[in-house]
Amino acid sequence: MPQLGLLPRRAWAALLSQLLRPPCASCTCAASCHSQGTRDLSPQQMVVREKILDLVVSCFKRHGAKGMDTPAFELKEMLTEKYGEGSGLMYDLKDQGGELLSLRYDLTVPFARYLAMNKVKKMKRYHVGKVWRRESPTIVQGRYREFCQCDFDIAGQFDPMIPDAECLKIMCEILNGLQLGDFLIKVNDRRIVDGMFAVCGVPESKFRTICSSIDKLDKMAWKDVRHEMVAKKGLAPEVADRIGDYVQCHGGVSLVEQMLQDPRLSQNKQALEGLGDLKLLFEYLTLFGIAEKISFDLSLARGLDYYTGVIYEAVLLHTPTQAGEEPLSVGSVAAGGRYDGLVGMFDPKGHKVPCVGLSIGVERIFNIVEQRMKISGEKVRTTETQVLVATPHKNFLQERLKLIAELWDAGIKAEMLYKNNPKLLTQLHYCESTGIPLVVIVGEQELKEGVVKIRSVASREEVAIKRENLVAEIQKRLSES
Amino acid sequence: MPQLGLLPRRAWAALLSQLLRPPCASCTCAASCHSQGTRDLSPQQMVVREKILDLVVSCFKRHGAKGMDTPAFELKEMLTEKYGEGSGLMYDLKDQGGELLSLRYDLTVPFARYLAMNKVKKMKRYHVGKVWRRESPTIVQGRYREFCQCDFDIAGQFDPMIPDAECLKIMCEILNGLQLGDFLIKVNDRRIVDGMFAVCGVPESKFRTICSSIDKLDKMAWKDVRHEMVAKKGLAPEVADRIGDYVQCHGGVSLVEQMLQDPRLSQNKQALEGLGDLKLLFEYLTLFGIAEKISFDLSLARGLDYYTGVIYEAVLLHTPTQAGEEPLSVGSVAAGGRYDGLVGMFDPKGHKVPCVGLSIGVERIFNIVEQRMKISGEKVRTTETQVLVATPHKNFLQERLKLIAELWDAGIKAEMLYKNNPKLLTQLHYCESTGIPLVVIVGEQELKEGVVKIRSVASREEVAIKRENLVAEIQKRLSES
Repeated sequence: MPQLGLLPRRAWAALLSQLLRPPCASCTCAASCHSQGTRDLSPQQMVVREKILDLVVSCFKRHGAKGMDTPAFELKEMLTEKYGEGSGLMYDLKDQGGELLSLRYDLTVPFARYLAMNKVKKMKRYHVGKVWRRESPTIVQGRYREFCQCDFDIAGQFDPMIPDAECLKIMCEILNGLQLGDFLIKVNDRRIVDGMFAVCGVPESKFRTICSSIDKLDKMAWKDVRHEMVAKKGLAPEVADRIGDYVQCHGGVSLVEQMLQDPRLSQNKQALEGLGDLKLLFEYLTLFGIAEKISFDLSLARGLDYYTGVIYEAVLLHTPTQAGEEPLSVGSVAAGGRYDGLVGMFDPKGHKVPCVGLSIGVERIFNIVEQRMKISGEKVRTTETQVLVATPHKNFLQERLKLIAELWDAGIKAEMLYKNNPKLLTQLHYCESTGIPLVVIVGEQELKEGVVKIRSVASREEVAIKRENLVAEIQKRLSES
Repeated sequence: MPQLGLLPRRAWAALLSQLLRPPCASCTCAASCHSQGTRDLSPQQMVVREKILDLVVSCFKRHGAKGMDTPAFELKEMLTEKYGEGSGLMYDLKDQGGELLSLRYDLTVPFARYLAMNKVKKMKRYHVGKVWRRESPTIVQGRYREFCQCDFDIAGQFDPMIPDAECLKIMCEILNGLQLGDFLIKVNDRRIVDGMFAVCGVPESKFRTICSSIDKLDKMAWKDVRHEMVAKKGLAPEVADRIGDYVQCHGGVSLVEQMLQDPRLSQNKQALEGLGDLKLLFEYLTLFGIAEKISFDLSLARGLDYYTGVIYEAVLLHTPTQAGEEPLSVGSVAAGGRYDGLVGMFDPKGHKVPCVGLSIGVERIFNIVEQRMKISGEKVRTTETQVLVATPHKNFLQERLKLIAELWDAGIKAEMLYKNNPKLLTQLHYCESTGIPLVVIVGEQELKEGVVKIRSVASREEVAIKRENLVAEIQKRLSES
């Protein structure tokens, strides 16, 4: 993991403002050579990505999850009516004869389809894969149309809030492990959201669409969200204002207690259930030692239709630059929740399998880590080569080929220049520029004496060793370093 | 790596005949729940897949390759006219406004596009990713429409046949490492194929389409291929028969020498160049110690349009069941070749970057390994959990939660049952069925004495240790095992 230590405050502020602008594609050509909103990953980017994914996956495995994969596309009918307003962003495949297909929009719906299809009643799995959304880059800044998701989910009928608490623990472990700075996990419950809508006077038919509006509160000001609800979605202004009072509330377990006493909310059965579960959740989070990272936040709604219970979203906090300044959230880096009804939608008999899970927004994390590395000037090796097989003399290609095959066969990571007669200096420069630590040199003298020279690139020291001891000697040196 | 040892001959024969049938989807429901020709990967399958991919990728890294990734879809225009007859199998995305897109058909064309776009003149990279082809399952049996490819390519202007030889070495290392049994790598050169066509009298306009027919010789008998060339593609019968004479030839470097003396072929400049390069290639393969695995085979044509030089394909051999029986090839598991013109097709000025590479057909390898494991009854663990946190008493959820958080925070892979009051026997059974080696037990007595018990699932031995020494004790046990 690249050490992300502490950046100077000014650099950190500059980085954040950069991250809030749309990312530029990796493309260096003026013409449009690949699809809008997608990007190639260069070897440098792949190294960063792999380190982050390794950390995420090892956390999932630490919690006992199994791996799984599903196809990139699903039958279109399997994906419809699962995502709410997001459905319009699905990539459809062209009808070329046969079934109508769409690229997957997340990893959750395919997981639910898998459980129903295979009649699996209990499963803890992780899934790392790409998903595709036709976001308009001008509307939603800084998002790619192809991006990687890392999901962890627990399916099965269990005692309340135990798996839910584990999901939050996992989010904390990953965000701590990635050293991205301070973070906060906002928690709410879909039943509290719906209960709040009900007691505020939102007609039930508008619950999901108003939920989508509330979900925008992390990107839009309250007055704009209010305007959308009233002018576009036809909500009565006084209803919107009642919602406005609630969505300003956030706090710890004491806010849960307070809401349990709220004269209107406490009259709503759904809301009461949600609040009761949150209270239990906070108890478990305290035992896990992470309660201070969690904020009960009534403005959290989550856009996706399929959530039925607890929902959560982790945001990175901007260290305040002035005393008294509010910490600034820089957007969600992980999110999830409980979806007890989704599997039943795929089962012919409607059998339900309760599920709870989380998704790590690795794409945004990649960007942050990459930008930090750029600012700090940190370099990464993009290859793992341990030895360059070199020669100072002409006509030594055959010897180099024999030597390198021996190293490869012994499992040693080795390269040579693909030239019949490369210059020694070129070969040594190659080691320096790519970070190869050792050079094995064979020339006329060495061949005559039945030896090879091993050179340390760092110290420039050379020692001659017997040809037949080469592999053992290199293995010894590599195990010492 | 699952030990694939030796299967009884009868089991092996049964396995092969199974592999030649179309694979059944992982779906267990009668209804069509996911797209034809695609499949989910279960946790068991993922474990096998990851082991195979790890072996492949570590070989690529051993040869100094960098990682890279490209989007799943490309601008449709970037993919057209690159694949010959395969182009019809491309998945197009629906026109939903904006650009016309297609799912990638292989990893080679996106790599060439990347090199041209970023003006990269030299690069050794690997890429593991999914590709999509609308194969008709009734025509091409045993193929998926979504499958994983593992590609290794060397781009750059180098001295002849050095990178090409390394590609063949890599194929040998991987196939040896996977212990799939005996294999053979067929080698030819596109220039020899074209030269052969020219001296046999094929009109130049028919080179590529006749090449596609020849490519089917591993799946179809000569008389059927001949029929396709004559009846469907309008080739004169005597021309087809002349080709027929050549494509029966296969052998080692001596066949190269023989063809260099062939009165017709030696008159063709292209063929001569190809034969000269093959001779050099065999010299390098001998130095790499793999020449006996390589067969110069004039029937090898490779279907893709973009090859310009040496081409190769690795096939697994069926151990003959009777003395004198010919080894039976069970289909290609790796293939590749040289494509010196492809990058230039993406460069506005047509600047060329010579490339050579290979692709491992991991999907077929997954099938083989999976089937062998089924036959041998070998089981794999799908999780890596080291410790179950358990209790024999009621009302110990809080203690279990505290304990497990401590283990997770110390990096120990731990699970617990998501029940308030699970039975001890259920907890112990869970360890046995999922392969968890250790149980940490906390109950009334332990809590009172400030200890916990560690139980070995295999030996059923239990020892009490001080609560504060738990993490250290477990780490000690895990490092010993």
